[in-house]
Amino acid sequence: MSGSSFGKIFRITTWGESHGPSLGVVIDGCPAGLPLEKEDLLGMLERRKPGSGEFTTKRSEADEPRILSGVFEGRTTGTPIAIMIENTSQRSGDYSDIAHLYRPGHADFCYDAKYGFRDYRGGGRSSGRETASRVAAGAVAMKLLETEGIKIRAYTRSIGPVSIPDEFDIADAKKNSLWMPHEKSAKEAEAYLRECMGECDSAGGIIECVIEGVKPGLGEPVFDKLDAMLASAIFSIGAVKGFEIGEGFRAAQLKGSENNDAFCIRDGKVSKLTNHSGGILGGISDGSPIVFRAAIKPTPSIAKPQRTVDDEGRETEITVHGRHDPVVVPRAVVVVEAMAALTLADALLMNRCAGL
Amino acid sequence: MSGSSFGKIFRITTWGESHGPSLGVVIDGCPAGLPLEKEDLLGMLERRKPGSGEFTTKRSEADEPRILSGVFEGRTTGTPIAIMIENTSQRSGDYSDIAHLYRPGHADFCYDAKYGFRDYRGGGRSSGRETASRVAAGAVAMKLLETEGIKIRAYTRSIGPVSIPDEFDIADAKKNSLWMPHEKSAKEAEAYLRECMGECDSAGGIIECVIEGVKPGLGEPVFDKLDAMLASAIFSIGAVKGFEIGEGFRAAQLKGSENNDAFCIRDGKVSKLTNHSGGILGGISDGSPIVFRAAIKPTPSIAKPQRTVDDEGRETEITVHGRHDPVVVPRAVVVVEAMAALTLADALLMNRCAGL
Amino acid sequence: MSGSSFGKIFRITTWGESHGPSLGVVIDGCPAGLPLEKEDLLGMLERRKPGSGEFTTKRSEADEPRILSGVFEGRTTGTPIAIMIENTSQRSGDYSDIAHLYRPGHADFCYDAKYGFRDYRGGGRSSGRETASRVAAGAVAMKLLETEGIKIRAYTRSIGPVSIPDEFDIADAKKNSLWMPHEKSAKEAEAYLRECMGECDSAGGIIECVIEGVKPGLGEPVFDKLDAMLASAIFSIGAVKGFEIGEGFRAAQLKGSENNDAFCIRDGKVSKLTNHSGGILGGISDGSPIVFRAAIKPTPSIAKPQRTVDDEGRETEITVHGRHDPVVVPRAVVVVEAMAALTLADALLMNRCAGL
Amino acid sequence: MSGSSFGKIFRITTWGESHGPSLGVVIDGCPAGLPLEKEDLLGMLERRKPGSGEFTTKRSEADEPRILSGVFEGRTTGTPIAIMIENTSQRSGDYSDIAHLYRPGHADFCYDAKYGFRDYRGGGRSSGRETASRVAAGAVAMKLLETEGIKIRAYTRSIGPVSIPDEFDIADAKKNSLWMPHEKSAKEAEAYLRECMGECDSAGGIIECVIEGVKPGLGEPVFDKLDAMLASAIFSIGAVKGFEIGEGFRAAQLKGSENNDAFCIRDGKVSKLTNHSGGILGGISDGSPIVFRAAIKPTPSIAKPQRTVDDEGRETEITVHGRHDPVVVPRAVVVVEAMAALTLADALLMNRCAGL
Repeated sequence: MSGSSFGKIFRITTWGESHGPSLGVVIDGCPAGLPLEKEDLLGMLERRKPGSGEFTTKRSEADEPRILSGVFEGRTTGTPIAIMIENTSQRSGDYSDIAHLYRPGHADFCYDAKYGFRDYRGGGRSSGRETASRVAAGAVAMKLLETEGIKIRAYTRSIGPVSIPDEFDIADAKKNSLWMPHEKSAKEAEAYLRECMGECDSAGGIIECVIEGVKPGLGEPVFDKLDAMLASAIFSIGAVKGFEIGEGFRAAQLKGSENNDAFCIRDGKVSKLTNHSGGILGGISDGSPIVFRAAIKPTPSIAKPQRTVDDEGRETEITVHGRHDPVVVPRAVVVVEAMAALTLADALLMNRCAGL
Repeated sequence: MSGSSFGKIFRITTWGESHGPSLGVVIDGCPAGLPLEKEDLLGMLERRKPGSGEFTTKRSEADEPRILSGVFEGRTTGTPIAIMIENTSQRSGDYSDIAHLYRPGHADFCYDAKYGFRDYRGGGRSSGRETASRVAAGAVAMKLLETEGIKIRAYTRSIGPVSIPDEFDIADAKKNSLWMPHEKSAKEAEAYLRECMGECDSAGGIIECVIEGVKPGLGEPVFDKLDAMLASAIFSIGAVKGFEIGEGFRAAQLKGSENNDAFCIRDGKVSKLTNHSGGILGGISDGSPIVFRAAIKPTPSIAKPQRTVDDEGRETEITVHGRHDPVVVPRAVVVVEAMAALTLADALLMNRCAGL
Repeated sequence: MSGSSFGKIFRITTWGESHGPSLGVVIDGCPAGLPLEKEDLLGMLERRKPGSGEFTTKRSEADEPRILSGVFEGRTTGTPIAIMIENTSQRSGDYSDIAHLYRPGHADFCYDAKYGFRDYRGGGRSSGRETASRVAAGAVAMKLLETEGIKIRAYTRSIGPVSIPDEFDIADAKKNSLWMPHEKSAKEAEAYLRECMGECDSAGGIIECVIEGVKPGLGEPVFDKLDAMLASAIFSIGAVKGFEIGEGFRAAQLKGSENNDAFCIRDGKVSKLTNHSGGILGGISDGSPIVFRAAIKPTPSIAKPQRTVDDEGRETEITVHGRHDPVVVPRAVVVVEAMAALTLADALLMNRCAGL
Repeated sequence: MSGSSFGKIFRITTWGESHGPSLGVVIDGCPAGLPLEKEDLLGMLERRKPGSGEFTTKRSEADEPRILSGVFEGRTTGTPIAIMIENTSQRSGDYSDIAHLYRPGHADFCYDAKYGFRDYRGGGRSSGRETASRVAAGAVAMKLLETEGIKIRAYTRSIGPVSIPDEFDIADAKKNSLWMPHEKSAKEAEAYLRECMGECDSAGGIIECVIEGVKPGLGEPVFDKLDAMLASAIFSIGAVKGFEIGEGFRAAQLKGSENNDAFCIRDGKVSKLTNHSGGILGGISDGSPIVFRAAIKPTPSIAKPQRTVDDEGRETEITVHGRHDPVVVPRAVVVVEAMAALTLADALLMNRCAGL
């Protein structure tokens, strides 16, 4: 119980380090009977994978998942689903020069402080590589959610100072490597990223996620509110520094009459005229699309020289070389979807116990 | 396990409804030997209590806690601490006219959708009154944290459009009923609130919280990151719509070189030149003050007429009368502190198992 | 999380000490819509209550439960059900002479070793009085199980050397204060108990429990096997020293052909010709009645002088006076039923997530 | 959360089926800094492995564990330790004839009832092969316990009707393949097993376990009593039908004065003159050796024809061929040790939070 499990019923446990032989996840609590094969995992893993693109790390990983248990004759059995992904491109040599330095913006110092030492190769357990396990598990959750008509899509809302306009078509996100659903903004963001790279610097951005098809009633009162669970899920992604739902921080400036959503009847069902709430009221889904945003900080690994200290308390300077993304936002989009899927799958199952 | 417990080791379970005979909390996992008496709870409970102020509900509750177990001869015994608070001012008659209407911005509809019916008196379990239990438990957590030199202070950063300036003195928060640590801003906020009340409307705001004295190493990797746990804790407070830490959403626009905090040695210890991280790196405390903000939506209960539906699917109009705060931000300040304390207490105990 | 919670979905947390003002339980996870009122708790609580009988403590408690939350208009709401029972007959004076002595067979020394000190009044948290909370919660679980046609009945199988014969009628258990479903054995057991009391000594015994109406499929594979959960539930009752299911320890001497239960078809359903398994195979209910036994040790509080030590490490002698049952078996019968009910309720809800 | 995790802090999750490509375990919560290498796992795994002996299955598995994460430069890092063992000798063909039959004494029918279908190859998830994962994890727990001076040894107390006498030397258990610490009894047990095998039948037995070096104070009050946790741990092993501690079922016949252990001072420490309690009082370790016993049922897989039904509800007959142990007791000895080690490791870490 030192933090590598998520979920109460649809419960996952991830394991593995950046430079170990492999990494993976065990899902305990996926209902029996769900059709599942390796191919179901590839789509989402492919999106997380470092690509050949201009804006992603040059580390090349096949990210080929193996389902080792929990599936029989093409269907989940109700027992743990173990998925493993081999690390094929770890190059420990890359990191030996920083084994004793604390990279600014990274967890190196904190791990040493907590555990007395750390696996310094590529960030060890704190590496973004760990998210491959989440994405594999998220793909299974997504399959489960599809059986209930739930659909989750995330996309890049902004990179650095470049935001998409209010009007856009989510479907366009796939059209560029930045996952920005607006071509003109994507071009501007690319230009901005090239500028950052030219300065040996990096960028952050905002990811937005829309979850459709959620019936009213998911989420538990008080501490396991659906938005609290989502907040925790999304904040567990390394680079996230902010999370908001519906109007989010803007709600703080609105008046009650502006922020409240009037109820109405639509197609014979209770619905809302607006969706300032972002699909959740009192911690429970209200039937409108769930809409949230996550702020992603700029990649801390930069080639620009920075002041730091070493693990013996000496002040020094560091230049982080190696294979790093100048911006993690585009690759984090699918991680956000995965964490949202895991949260919803768990809420869905928990809700089965709400009534007699 | 339907959501009313928080924490893994320092674990609380709250119970009670707005209009039941009483409400309370059971704390299981508080270490033995902590000096504790009823008086230790009064300070924080007092701050949450509806007061005689201009901007709080007229519901008057003594909020007198009783410690029913877990304390012997003035010290905690290591077994469950049960605390109960009687409801003395519930007036169920107030709510009979809205028993069948869904109040916009409230969980009424969602509870009906989830459970098939609901306790409609004052919001039942979804009432803000539930937070009295959290505050009582938070006061115990605070006592535990004090033994480790940890200090938690929250305050109102903004109400509606009125924000405090960058320079202020936290100690000033106590000087006005809005808990704004800046007198001029507080006056402006009061004027704004009077305007809202005049329009039968309400306001929201932003609460900021600073946690000092946290040693490096608290928080667990991956899913139980300290910021993820704080996000979940704070988002479990009813009116919260956004959470950010350190630079938060602003980090999305910064470059790596701007957002990274350089490490240095100060007083012989590893420290940081800046604190853009907000005191947490890779989910683990880095020794700097932890600084986070929460966006609070405007009170949904407003006397202005709103469109809504009833529980038989008929469209209608609603005017929410009763005793409501025009803004919950000032009273939520201590709830934020309580949830932060509960999160830190849990992280502190979890961290005892990090090493041999 | 220091041990006072039980169950994963139908989850209870008990609190309170022998000599505190009150004790109680919070149930979080009871489905909404279950009819429940105080009267539903009285039957089981009455059976646990120290009576006017010859073989029970003279401590007299009303054991009047109050339902403080989670029920609205006669039905459970899905949110926490808090139940409190006042202690009305604690007499702390009784215990002052043993405040510093470790009673043999009791947890006094262990609590001191664990926590550094203890509430010595009547055993504090380790008192059998704590089971009143379990019984109240068990009564709620029983109501839930009844909606599924599940029926749980326990009875005294033996007291000291006196056992009931193989042939008996469970319904007879109610006919005597020892809950032995066989009159002649009950008479013999009474004679034996009088002998023990004459010698300032005490007796133990065996409780058997039969659970009928459980459909096949309850229980989770591997660690949360239904029998493992029952073992844990029953062993958490203070005086239990052994637990066995079906043939139990006798199975160790049987051959496979003797111990296996042949499957057959009965009334169109898969059934078993025998029930050596005790209703559980591979940790999952097989549709036959679940039958288990618990060994209860003799009451450790005896008036006979015993060697012991005090909390400053001095050897001395102790004579435990006060109001003690010469045998706890009859009163533990309903506690066994309660723990079985809580276990089954939890398994029932967990099983809702087994399939799509 | 469908049952494949054990422990609260030192928490393991096992995965894998009898005939999948591999099986394994993830340990989350092992403190950082523990020296660990593959060789540390081999000793215990070797003892569980089907050997070349006369009384074990002919299935031959290398049971070569791979540590895939959580260890860096020979020490645990505090993050999840993943261990995988390949299945090398699964022969699915063996089982095709029983794919649609319910083997008496096995979980086949129950899995079908619970999940709608099952992996019928070698019992799938319910196979005893799953215990390899537990043993690997148990070996890690054992390493942790050794740092605290805790030592766990189990042995065969009886097989069928053959029991060892009261006087014996645990160290002798290693001298025969039945793990009986008494040569003469072992010879008799072997003769008995040959007789069973001649009759196409099988045998059960009793395993006893002694845990030395446990300081007073481990175990949590009420529901997580150390004996309750042990009961659950041991009962989660497939063939266990009974569990008792100290005097166990015999305590039910003793008088209080016979069963109580007088306290005394030995070597300046509180000790007990006898150990009827089996080392636990009130659910908390009392400093004496912890002694418990588990009843193991006879292997349900027998070649003798048995009545049964198929998964379409037809009555028929079954003869279970394949590679089965005529008695699982000797191989279960190390599984009992592993589960005891996992329980103690968890209790040890939990206890770190007992005091300030």
